[in-house]
Amino acid sequence: MKFSVKVTLKKDVLDPQGKVVAQTLQNMGMNTLKNIRQGKYFEIEISENNEAKAKEKIDEMCKKLLVNLIIEDFEISKI
Amino acid sequence: MKFSVKVTLKKDVLDPQGKVVAQTLQNMGMNTLKNIRQGKYFEIEISENNEAKAKEKIDEMCKKLLVNLIIEDFEISKI
Repeated sequence: MKFSVKVTLKKDVLDPQGKVVAQTLQNMGMNTLKNIRQGKYFEIEISENNEAKAKEKIDEMCKKLLVNLIIEDFEISKI
Repeated sequence: MKFSVKVTLKKDVLDPQGKVVAQTLQNMGMNTLKNIRQGKYFEIEISENNEAKAKEKIDEMCKKLLVNLIIEDFEISKI
């Protein structure tokens, strides 16, 4: 079973990397750009046939290693 | 208008960062894990009301700055 995990910075956390990307794009003439935030993305394959159990495992991986819950949010979806 | 962009390494490109994450998770006892690949994720807000035009702009940003087309694929979706 394959899942995707999107990890994004929480709304009130500053995103300096995103800011730099935004400035660079604006300097390149993309003046319609309003905002850009950068996050991480994982594609995880797991050998577990029960979807609920698989999701639980992924959730555990996120909480234990992949995501810093203090500053980041995450979203798991099946692909 | 807000879009998300997922950037992933092409299938045949090695992903050392993903490998390390996979090994770490396996060492932590997650033995059902089969594979994990890491990518990037962007949330882009753009002041353009025509969806097709907005997507085109995002596509341009990806090709010019955000994505290395030699080793990476990307996928734009509206959010």
